[in-house]
Amino acid sequence: MTWTQKQIKVMDLADKLAPKKGLFKLPENIIYLDGNSLGAMPRSAQARVESVLKNEWSQGLVRSWNKYGWINLPQKIGDKIANLIGAECGEVVSADSTSINVFKVVTAALQMQKGRNKIISEKSNFPTDLYILQGIENLMVDGAKLVALDRDKIYDSIDAETAVVHLTHVHYKTGALFDMDAITKKAHDVGALVVWDLAHTVGAMPIDLNRAGADFAVGCGYKYLNGGPGAPAFLFVAKRHQENVRPSLSGWMGHEKPFDFSDYYQPARGINRNLCGTPSVIALSAFEEGLNTFDGVDMNDIRDKSMALGSLFLELVMDQCGEFGFDLASPKKAERRGSHISLTHDHGFKIMQALIDHGVIGDFRAPNIVRFGFTPLYTSFQNIWDAVEILANIMDKGLWKDPKYAMRSKVT
Amino acid sequence: MTWTQKQIKVMDLADKLAPKKGLFKLPENIIYLDGNSLGAMPRSAQARVESVLKNEWSQGLVRSWNKYGWINLPQKIGDKIANLIGAECGEVVSADSTSINVFKVVTAALQMQKGRNKIISEKSNFPTDLYILQGIENLMVDGAKLVALDRDKIYDSIDAETAVVHLTHVHYKTGALFDMDAITKKAHDVGALVVWDLAHTVGAMPIDLNRAGADFAVGCGYKYLNGGPGAPAFLFVAKRHQENVRPSLSGWMGHEKPFDFSDYYQPARGINRNLCGTPSVIALSAFEEGLNTFDGVDMNDIRDKSMALGSLFLELVMDQCGEFGFDLASPKKAERRGSHISLTHDHGFKIMQALIDHGVIGDFRAPNIVRFGFTPLYTSFQNIWDAVEILANIMDKGLWKDPKYAMRSKVT
Repeated sequence: MTWTQKQIKVMDLADKLAPKKGLFKLPENIIYLDGNSLGAMPRSAQARVESVLKNEWSQGLVRSWNKYGWINLPQKIGDKIANLIGAECGEVVSADSTSINVFKVVTAALQMQKGRNKIISEKSNFPTDLYILQGIENLMVDGAKLVALDRDKIYDSIDAETAVVHLTHVHYKTGALFDMDAITKKAHDVGALVVWDLAHTVGAMPIDLNRAGADFAVGCGYKYLNGGPGAPAFLFVAKRHQENVRPSLSGWMGHEKPFDFSDYYQPARGINRNLCGTPSVIALSAFEEGLNTFDGVDMNDIRDKSMALGSLFLELVMDQCGEFGFDLASPKKAERRGSHISLTHDHGFKIMQALIDHGVIGDFRAPNIVRFGFTPLYTSFQNIWDAVEILANIMDKGLWKDPKYAMRSKVT
Repeated sequence: MTWTQKQIKVMDLADKLAPKKGLFKLPENIIYLDGNSLGAMPRSAQARVESVLKNEWSQGLVRSWNKYGWINLPQKIGDKIANLIGAECGEVVSADSTSINVFKVVTAALQMQKGRNKIISEKSNFPTDLYILQGIENLMVDGAKLVALDRDKIYDSIDAETAVVHLTHVHYKTGALFDMDAITKKAHDVGALVVWDLAHTVGAMPIDLNRAGADFAVGCGYKYLNGGPGAPAFLFVAKRHQENVRPSLSGWMGHEKPFDFSDYYQPARGINRNLCGTPSVIALSAFEEGLNTFDGVDMNDIRDKSMALGSLFLELVMDQCGEFGFDLASPKKAERRGSHISLTHDHGFKIMQALIDHGVIGDFRAPNIVRFGFTPLYTSFQNIWDAVEILANIMDKGLWKDPKYAMRSKVT
């Protein structure tokens, strides 16, 4: 169909999540379609962090570990995340980075799978997932053997020799979704354990780890959860496995009695054993404010709006930019995508630079992908309309050919 | 000698570092002798973090990775730390927690020592060091064997079977110093590598890793470096070893070309390969302000003042509290201590609670240690005088016997 500006207005007026946009502080005259890389700043994060410094750190000093509950932040935040991913309280904890957490849960899973060492993952999985698995392979020698497969070969390759299946639920480039329930079931049928990376899932759609029977999961705090640049990550361990985890990164925060200062590691009961070193209180505090933006939100509404935003974007692009050489790198059906859409274009890097220069922030992923994320909490339908108009103008007038867009920046 | 209030005033007037106190925001009516656990807040940290949120995150959004140099913070901060520990630029990087960094450098060292698997450490080393080593032992099976020894047995036990010697330079409880030069030399003589944990060293005294020939080191950002609660930690790898490190926590930030998104891990050249996941920009920014408080400071002046503060404390305690059952758990000679002093007392926990209640913040370490840290940048000689007067008063009047001091808090 062909959309009109009037219809867009109606969609924004009908949007249940529209009031949430006010929770965020966004720059004027910018359309931000990169919340899948770095979420926007909740206004409350500024006040919270200011208070953590001014009152908790500067005035409370070391007493604040108790007085302001610093010591419990990883669990408190974990419980808020649990709420978004179909986990129970006490199944999730916030700690370290996603990379570190992949290491923790995959080594834990491998050690629970005596006699099996095969890890199945996806070729072109998010690089850090593969790199961490390669590091485990190198360190554990005979204890781990990575097999990275093309996406369409994975399901059938999960067999009785498979120790662990480690997949990213929503692909960072294409946005393609794995069928979590089906893959988890297949793995369990042959005695394998499953680790889900929810980096591009959490906060963008409803998800139910326990319904799927997931064993382990990890996820990122700084994308759809709005936790701040490089926010702490999180991990999930299903209750039934928790007492069988022998942490390989066995730091003092995961000890049963960290303040007894014993010489021998005794893992804490439950999820806490998956903590390692002392976490950044400032970073955790900002992260908590990011999670608070989901208060009262039905994740089904998030998903509905996310799909509507994506579909609108795609239709407008096809309509207005169909002649300019873009191809769709994402699944065409909204049900099979996460909350971002990727287009390929031979001049993708320059086009994205021009877009950013004209106030539309998405990102570029080598070799030729321009990526647009749709964050239901702070993106309006009008934003999508405007963004595609700007893109069409850049393409129509060849603005991306300006030599100033030829330089590749260090991070894109 | 017996000190007089007048002499104390003279010492403060002569103190070259006294002007530095103004850089910190400290609570009124509190004497803070726990900077060895959590450093005080630099005033500049508040402005910096506020700006990171208000300008860099909220307005710059994902562009700030380049625009504000977020991507280079780990190295930039590392170079500032290098300056304090006798390392070169490019030998130190800030990342993760101390616990995680112990894992990184010890596994790297073990993998460089084919045919040897013995790790020598100290019984009663800081627990997380031992716990991490126990985790490595468990994960690497035949690749690592921890031997934790009494302090006085360590030097002689370093032998041709030793792969790695991992020690904490200043003991967290007693403050006792290891002879870094002698132990490193002994290890090298028999072909072992040495990992120094500088948690209670860095920022408290001059140190020269390269003069000692140290191989690896780790350290903490939130103690004497004033980096904020749970600040990122750091690690050091001597230039000569850097290209031989095969990171076991091989995350994307340690990749040679992280933004090429290749499927295969290729370690970055130099120190960068020791990075793992995405770091917290907010936490790193606060940390940098902590390090900036050392601008223009001669670490020899830090050491001189630290020893003078400690010696004054000890003399005043002996003089005014000699009859109350305290024993010295730290070395008597200032040259053999770090920058904190520990006393034992059967009622240590209650005494420390009473002290805190009366405005003197130190800490308690099980089973019976009261610990006092002397941070030359923001502690005056008058602070020491006042603190001991308050302690003497608490002991003299038995104020610590108040039942309200009987409860053990979760963190002390």
